[in-house]
Amino acid sequence: MNTFGKNFRVTTFGESHGKALGCVIDGCPQGIALEEGDIQPLLDRRRPGSSPLTSPRSETDRIEILSGVFEGKTTGTPIAMIVRNENAKPGDYDALRDIFRPGHADFAYQEKYGTRDHRGGGRSSGRETIGRVAAGALALKYLGEKGITVTGRIVSVHGKTEPAEIEREILAAKEAGDSVGGIVEIIAKGCPAGLGDPVFGKLDAAIAGALMGIGAVKGVEIGDGFAVAGRFGSGNNDAMTKDGFASNHAGGILGGISSGQDIIVRIAVKPTPSIAKTQKTRDIHGNVVDISISGRHDPCIALRIVPVAEAMLALVLMDAVLEQEKYR
Amino acid sequence: MNTFGKNFRVTTFGESHGKALGCVIDGCPQGIALEEGDIQPLLDRRRPGSSPLTSPRSETDRIEILSGVFEGKTTGTPIAMIVRNENAKPGDYDALRDIFRPGHADFAYQEKYGTRDHRGGGRSSGRETIGRVAAGALALKYLGEKGITVTGRIVSVHGKTEPAEIEREILAAKEAGDSVGGIVEIIAKGCPAGLGDPVFGKLDAAIAGALMGIGAVKGVEIGDGFAVAGRFGSGNNDAMTKDGFASNHAGGILGGISSGQDIIVRIAVKPTPSIAKTQKTRDIHGNVVDISISGRHDPCIALRIVPVAEAMLALVLMDAVLEQEKYR
Amino acid sequence: MNTFGKNFRVTTFGESHGKALGCVIDGCPQGIALEEGDIQPLLDRRRPGSSPLTSPRSETDRIEILSGVFEGKTTGTPIAMIVRNENAKPGDYDALRDIFRPGHADFAYQEKYGTRDHRGGGRSSGRETIGRVAAGALALKYLGEKGITVTGRIVSVHGKTEPAEIEREILAAKEAGDSVGGIVEIIAKGCPAGLGDPVFGKLDAAIAGALMGIGAVKGVEIGDGFAVAGRFGSGNNDAMTKDGFASNHAGGILGGISSGQDIIVRIAVKPTPSIAKTQKTRDIHGNVVDISISGRHDPCIALRIVPVAEAMLALVLMDAVLEQEKYR
Amino acid sequence: MNTFGKNFRVTTFGESHGKALGCVIDGCPQGIALEEGDIQPLLDRRRPGSSPLTSPRSETDRIEILSGVFEGKTTGTPIAMIVRNENAKPGDYDALRDIFRPGHADFAYQEKYGTRDHRGGGRSSGRETIGRVAAGALALKYLGEKGITVTGRIVSVHGKTEPAEIEREILAAKEAGDSVGGIVEIIAKGCPAGLGDPVFGKLDAAIAGALMGIGAVKGVEIGDGFAVAGRFGSGNNDAMTKDGFASNHAGGILGGISSGQDIIVRIAVKPTPSIAKTQKTRDIHGNVVDISISGRHDPCIALRIVPVAEAMLALVLMDAVLEQEKYR
Repeated sequence: MNTFGKNFRVTTFGESHGKALGCVIDGCPQGIALEEGDIQPLLDRRRPGSSPLTSPRSETDRIEILSGVFEGKTTGTPIAMIVRNENAKPGDYDALRDIFRPGHADFAYQEKYGTRDHRGGGRSSGRETIGRVAAGALALKYLGEKGITVTGRIVSVHGKTEPAEIEREILAAKEAGDSVGGIVEIIAKGCPAGLGDPVFGKLDAAIAGALMGIGAVKGVEIGDGFAVAGRFGSGNNDAMTKDGFASNHAGGILGGISSGQDIIVRIAVKPTPSIAKTQKTRDIHGNVVDISISGRHDPCIALRIVPVAEAMLALVLMDAVLEQEKYR
Repeated sequence: MNTFGKNFRVTTFGESHGKALGCVIDGCPQGIALEEGDIQPLLDRRRPGSSPLTSPRSETDRIEILSGVFEGKTTGTPIAMIVRNENAKPGDYDALRDIFRPGHADFAYQEKYGTRDHRGGGRSSGRETIGRVAAGALALKYLGEKGITVTGRIVSVHGKTEPAEIEREILAAKEAGDSVGGIVEIIAKGCPAGLGDPVFGKLDAAIAGALMGIGAVKGVEIGDGFAVAGRFGSGNNDAMTKDGFASNHAGGILGGISSGQDIIVRIAVKPTPSIAKTQKTRDIHGNVVDISISGRHDPCIALRIVPVAEAMLALVLMDAVLEQEKYR
Repeated sequence: MNTFGKNFRVTTFGESHGKALGCVIDGCPQGIALEEGDIQPLLDRRRPGSSPLTSPRSETDRIEILSGVFEGKTTGTPIAMIVRNENAKPGDYDALRDIFRPGHADFAYQEKYGTRDHRGGGRSSGRETIGRVAAGALALKYLGEKGITVTGRIVSVHGKTEPAEIEREILAAKEAGDSVGGIVEIIAKGCPAGLGDPVFGKLDAAIAGALMGIGAVKGVEIGDGFAVAGRFGSGNNDAMTKDGFASNHAGGILGGISSGQDIIVRIAVKPTPSIAKTQKTRDIHGNVVDISISGRHDPCIALRIVPVAEAMLALVLMDAVLEQEKYR
Repeated sequence: MNTFGKNFRVTTFGESHGKALGCVIDGCPQGIALEEGDIQPLLDRRRPGSSPLTSPRSETDRIEILSGVFEGKTTGTPIAMIVRNENAKPGDYDALRDIFRPGHADFAYQEKYGTRDHRGGGRSSGRETIGRVAAGALALKYLGEKGITVTGRIVSVHGKTEPAEIEREILAAKEAGDSVGGIVEIIAKGCPAGLGDPVFGKLDAAIAGALMGIGAVKGVEIGDGFAVAGRFGSGNNDAMTKDGFASNHAGGILGGISSGQDIIVRIAVKPTPSIAKTQKTRDIHGNVVDISISGRHDPCIALRIVPVAEAMLALVLMDAVLEQEKYR
């Protein structure tokens, strides 16, 4: 299943080491001013090779819009966008052809399909998110025009919360041939009340599904999240005042529907599973082998997940905003 | 949106204080032995009125199967099941007609639809889950025949983990006209490797969406969940041995696909928002008012969410198992 | 697949000789006045036993609304409606348990599923249309309030077009233990321009799919239909004048989108395949046998398809109207 | 809605006079040998400029596969294919910017969207079918490996059935600045019994929807189609013999499910609406004007619909075959 969304339907395609990656967006409203320059900046934020804290794979990730735009505006027809791979080095992965990398999809894919694309994970690679980010950039533009912003940030890495400490943790892990996990928070401001559908179309359910669907994410919480389990109702309910709510424990969503307050989401990102440190694993013949993964990997994937998480939250909100327009 | 699932499609209907509730299941395999007695026990576990720890609303919740079964077996055609409401007391809610209950969907619904069903929340009531649980019971039966079990339990309530302490916390909260939150864990054993689809059909994404979509749930984590954010990759990867995996930090899902290990999910459940204690809120005219909710409410809704969470995890797995059969 | 529609989603359930039949409608707008009396008349028109021209099976087909209505109006939540079977005589079909009735789904079902519900065809029975007609009646009510009417009529039976001739043909066929085919026309008046979606959501495509999906229908045409194949473009195009169109060869649909003219659809209905006359067929063991079908059958099923065709066209238009409201 | 299919999901994109057109296919089985040479021949058959009987627009329509293929075989991931426009002459259409062409989608689009892409119709252009034909070519390859063939042919043009007469009719119409309609028949041989789903997923319903969704098609019939309306049941049922069926009036589909006989479909194609002959129409300001359309148009669009109809029938069968594999 490579399509996301019901009203703003994004289909992504392309592999880590294939010819090109991209997306087709069906259901985009007409009349939005759109050019490559609107999409490129978010792609640049997810791009590798831009800092010692990220993977050194060198890609320019230039976006090209193929359809759906006429005289500088969206026409309401499908918008196809592509990025051609430039620095694919499938040869890097030959040594891994028969080995299941710990913490990766390799074993599960092999069990499911009886085969897999060993070239950097194929579609399970982080490069698959290029299509999501390109679509998310368009959603962010539309939402921005409605006064809705979506901003992500690193809350903590390996338990540390200060930028300097975080950088130190990441470089130390890299040095040690290891990696570290982190927590990312994404906040949407300016959302109208009323987004989301009761029962099986709840906004928080859609957000949880979208964010848990990003590789390496192992937990999602809305508002105060897991902390609510230790509370009294009287301390957790958000009282209402003349001007709105007195607090926002709920994180902007009540009964699955946005309340008009900030939507607050946090996700737990595991340490990058590809590490240089030697690990025990198995090959496809069942032999236990040692593995040391020497490719171009991120010591803390949480950093590069920030723009992806923004994109996914934007896609969920975009879908909900378009759905909501039915009721207006 | 009142339909859940792609292969095993469950549509639920009915309101808290209407004539009947139920579900229609489309896509159920033929040949499963099925009678009301297969469905009733899970419904009985979610039923109110069975203990001093739960709501005193008295409902027998007797299930009736209307279609899809012939000579005691499913035929592959839609299975309609209904439960008639018996103890509906819509009058209980008249005082709340114009008031937004804190922590409830009321305000967001009003903003969305310009109106709402004040009778116990209508579809946003916990009684809506009757349809989900009935469908989940059927899924559990099918999964059971494939050797897959799904079991939920209370992990903690208001920070306490021992049964006696938990009961004391709940009764104390009830006594005080208050409520308490908790954490529920659901484990699926016996799942084959290979369930779930890459990219937008990941098993963990589907689980997160399904469980966050249960009312009162504010967080979902898989495997070690939020704890992974504080780890090194070398400590978080599950090494492989001759016989499988040496650990299960991943909670049975890698790259969005089941690995064959136990699938472990935890959810954070907020304290029941309906409490007798006086709270500040607003009415639909914008006046700030005091509210004390005296209906028949659960002091700890986490308890009654256990069978609902089992049902929802079963529905996700059922869908994935049917999807998987395509590849075999 | 037992769900029809994207915005007004109708799921039907129930078998010819089971406990009950019905439907659940998800996506119905709120605020429509609705009671059983709004649904019953269209069901009565499709009901058997009301004339010597139709099957003598005696069913009252009383509809009961279970959910989705509060204080006499739809709430926007799912509307479940059921009809209990009263005159089921599954025993009538015991002789046919192992025999493939010519012109019926029996052989194809057996090939597909390896089994089938021999009791009057189960879900492939005409009684399955009860759920469609109930949902269609609600759609017709909503459309009517928007000024849209949908009316069907018999155009011809066995080549005859006059009512008296038609009745004579049907009674003669009945007398001879045979059946006759016919053509039904359905016209929708008052549709706004703009219904339907380009490419794969065209209104004429949806209509063709919906009407060809009625049992016994073998052809669908819009406007002048097959006659256009013998025309010049200059004679087939509908010129535009100051006040609209000068003609309606197109049948109200251009490029898959309604033009505001009457939508005109005709369907070809085959003769009822169940006939008393002796036919050659096979049983499930491969033996060639003689078959004479003596159940309670319609000598001309086209007659009873009229309300079903109205219902299906209404469901397509309802879906398109709700879709269209997004753009307004 | 630019996505077709449930299992083999084809999303098309691109406009007549934009940068590129193409499709993304999600759900294609892995392991099919695939290269551009497998797709090009069917595209060449729909290509304009290849005969005096078709439009002189000169396009090479070279297909490029961007993803989903590794080492010459499909991987099961999305297959993106594009064709770049070369001979776009949007200027040709400037004169038509404000005028509704008779028989075209122009008026209905304008009513729906309040605007339209006047450059050759944008997405409503026949060039949109490039994506469909590319996807259809892949489906045909897969079906071919299963022993299923799909072949279309012109049955009649302007009432003539002999090739020489047909050519004369078309050239005469072209000479006169006019166009002619025709009938196309598509036959699928080698289909297994059991394709299609009861109720709302019937194979004939899917075929009717798919073929009526091709621009210019105004009627669809299966098997004997409209002729059945003039028959007795005893003359229309296909008797069964020891070896199968004695006749194929049903056109290979019974109760919405394939019977294993040839699937026979005929469609009525209207005369190309773009003609040089002067017609009366309106502009967007409501003025009645004369129009003579001098672009590069086909005098008989039925000819170029043949490969499109093959592609669409192939897509329907592909979807049904993949669905069916669930039951095996």
